[in-house]
Amino acid sequence: MKRTHYSKDITPEMNGDAVIVSGWVHEIRDFGGLAFLILRDRAGLVQVTMPKKKVPKEIIDTVKGLSRESVVSIGGTVKAEAKAPNGYELIPTEIEVLSIAETPLPLDPTGKVPAELDTRLDARFMDIRSPEVTAIFTIRAHMIKAVRDFLSANGCLEIATPKIVATATEGGTALFPISYFDREAFLNQSPQLYKQMMMAAGMDRVYEIGPIFRAEEHATRKHLNEATSIDVELSFATHEDAMILLENTIAYVYNYVKEHCASQLKVLNIDLQVPKTPFRRVPYTEAVEIAKTSPECAHLELGDDLDTAAEHVIGETIGEHYFIVDWPTNIRAFYSQAYDDRPEVCKAFDLMHPRMELSSGAQREHRVDKLIKNLEDRDLNPDSFKFYLDSFRYGMPPHAGWGLGAERLLQTMLNLNNVREAVLFPRDRVRITP
Amino acid sequence: MKRTHYSKDITPEMNGDAVIVSGWVHEIRDFGGLAFLILRDRAGLVQVTMPKKKVPKEIIDTVKGLSRESVVSIGGTVKAEAKAPNGYELIPTEIEVLSIAETPLPLDPTGKVPAELDTRLDARFMDIRSPEVTAIFTIRAHMIKAVRDFLSANGCLEIATPKIVATATEGGTALFPISYFDREAFLNQSPQLYKQMMMAAGMDRVYEIGPIFRAEEHATRKHLNEATSIDVELSFATHEDAMILLENTIAYVYNYVKEHCASQLKVLNIDLQVPKTPFRRVPYTEAVEIAKTSPECAHLELGDDLDTAAEHVIGETIGEHYFIVDWPTNIRAFYSQAYDDRPEVCKAFDLMHPRMELSSGAQREHRVDKLIKNLEDRDLNPDSFKFYLDSFRYGMPPHAGWGLGAERLLQTMLNLNNVREAVLFPRDRVRITP
Repeated sequence: MKRTHYSKDITPEMNGDAVIVSGWVHEIRDFGGLAFLILRDRAGLVQVTMPKKKVPKEIIDTVKGLSRESVVSIGGTVKAEAKAPNGYELIPTEIEVLSIAETPLPLDPTGKVPAELDTRLDARFMDIRSPEVTAIFTIRAHMIKAVRDFLSANGCLEIATPKIVATATEGGTALFPISYFDREAFLNQSPQLYKQMMMAAGMDRVYEIGPIFRAEEHATRKHLNEATSIDVELSFATHEDAMILLENTIAYVYNYVKEHCASQLKVLNIDLQVPKTPFRRVPYTEAVEIAKTSPECAHLELGDDLDTAAEHVIGETIGEHYFIVDWPTNIRAFYSQAYDDRPEVCKAFDLMHPRMELSSGAQREHRVDKLIKNLEDRDLNPDSFKFYLDSFRYGMPPHAGWGLGAERLLQTMLNLNNVREAVLFPRDRVRITP
Repeated sequence: MKRTHYSKDITPEMNGDAVIVSGWVHEIRDFGGLAFLILRDRAGLVQVTMPKKKVPKEIIDTVKGLSRESVVSIGGTVKAEAKAPNGYELIPTEIEVLSIAETPLPLDPTGKVPAELDTRLDARFMDIRSPEVTAIFTIRAHMIKAVRDFLSANGCLEIATPKIVATATEGGTALFPISYFDREAFLNQSPQLYKQMMMAAGMDRVYEIGPIFRAEEHATRKHLNEATSIDVELSFATHEDAMILLENTIAYVYNYVKEHCASQLKVLNIDLQVPKTPFRRVPYTEAVEIAKTSPECAHLELGDDLDTAAEHVIGETIGEHYFIVDWPTNIRAFYSQAYDDRPEVCKAFDLMHPRMELSSGAQREHRVDKLIKNLEDRDLNPDSFKFYLDSFRYGMPPHAGWGLGAERLLQTMLNLNNVREAVLFPRDRVRITP
């Protein structure tokens, strides 16, 4: 038996038509002379109605033998029925049992019985069957598509850079080492150096959406050890150009999701507000002042990085997406460009959602002599970056860019409590299965 | 100075307009009273014409001081000129030098002076500046977009699965081990097990385009240790359904590239022929017979896997894309489904280009008892696959799917000699930089 329709593609107007649907046994109700099987497929629910006098006994017996969440194909006749989901029911003429579910189920797939996130992640295949989780990952696919569409329309060419690398992007230690044949290599923590090399290659504007890997030992609701990064780099551009593209990307994505995922947003009970552009630019010094209004952050001094507590205070104060700009040079990555007339401040920015940081970016230092000095200032060895520095020696345009965390974008857009809810199979300090 | 136009966006009709272009110094020609600077940007070339009597001496002096491949912005007035590239030239009024290229260059960026592939890959940022290499990666971006568009239009939802995993997909040994905090993990060699779990999750039809990692020690023109895989899995589908989607994907991609990348194909001197669907289905037994017609493959016996020599003979004989179907069960992966009535043959297929294999796929075994037996038959321990097997116990629909190598698809489409030409930064046995 071959599926002819998804549940949502059948309409009351098809009254009398023969169709075949396939899916999971969502529910069985037996009222003596009348039984119902509610079938669930990706698109929704189908009510299969079985008046015992009209439906062959073999079918009713087969249905009675089914456990919840078993998989079946059912052929039958469409009957318009205003009270049923989608305005029709199916009177079955044929049933094929494809997979019998064992009992008890590891998790309630309707999501009605709440479970701890860890329990849900252990049985993720079952957890995803709930309408809420299906909605999250349907929105995620649309969100990623919206990002690609918008960046492509803005002249960015999609690239793919290596995940196995020989050098740490930022010289940090938060890297996963790999045994690469007879030598050591690492999982890349960011496409940063590679997307910059594509500026030297003349690709002009590029983007990449792919996995990044960070061996940080944090166990918070906003960190992952494997995440998806949306990376952009723009030639002949300033940090301000990069910020404009970034805020417009965010607004486009929100609009797109609002337009294309209305039913999923309804399942999640979200009234999505599209952030207004331009986002406010808050200089770092002002951000510190705002944070210090809270006793919790009174210890903060100019020159300190902003911790979670500070982000929280500033986010509460501003209450919408904003940028923090003009950071102290010495707390940003070596590839950030300082202002020529005040080298202690650099053209780096963070894009903030009131709840957390979403993206980091900067105008990059494209002058190789200054870049080498930046490395040395941070006790990094320029020899380790030779492959990267070489690309600055033979014509490197000024450029700027950013990296945006896809999971955090989804988490904040859908107001998810934990970033793990935004990934099919999250990886953290203690979890590498399923 | 801020770029106002790419080279190709300026037309002779803009005669008299002021514009600013930015790019690389492609060539400088000095004829005494008249000098030319050919500027190159992503889109093409601009002829900057400098009659010495009309252009300020500072500009001419600046131009004379430029090395090839330096980066500049030039403001000037458009002048229609039939003999110039694109029918216009630029009379400069302003020049800004953004980056001076060191000499000598590590590689000829025009691609006119041939270099060994290894030399080119060492200076990849410079290699990509050649029109041919730019064309390859522009086509690659379009190819990937075409795949996504087609799969989305066919109801496949995009997913992202983890690259850090605890278990080998096929129990093989060709895995890169990672130090994951205090334990061992691996880089995933395929999203196989995860995309199948998404069938248990009710996602129905999914695709993923992402990196895969294989620690095989081969050093051939068609193998990479890090590659991009296009993975598809379809519920309530057979291997024949999967093959139909696959051949239609290939045809769609060829058509799309032909339509959207005409200028790049011209640069590469390729007259792209769209393969005709349906592709021929060649049973494994017939494939062996064809191979054995060559003395080189006379030793081949039924039950043997097909090696490169055999693929070559069969490809030469058939001369177009084809499938090899109905493989011996015991030489295919444990998740392939055998025919119930002849268990020694399974519903696996390979999609072949005359030059090489592009894709593998199969109807999957969705019955957990048979799947466990398949593992045991291959001396694999079902306990290691518990997280995967669990997803088959609570309602798993029949399903089928495939994995298609993005680089091989590009390599065969563009007739590239070496698969490394289809990757920005290839990773092989000896290369992990740049």
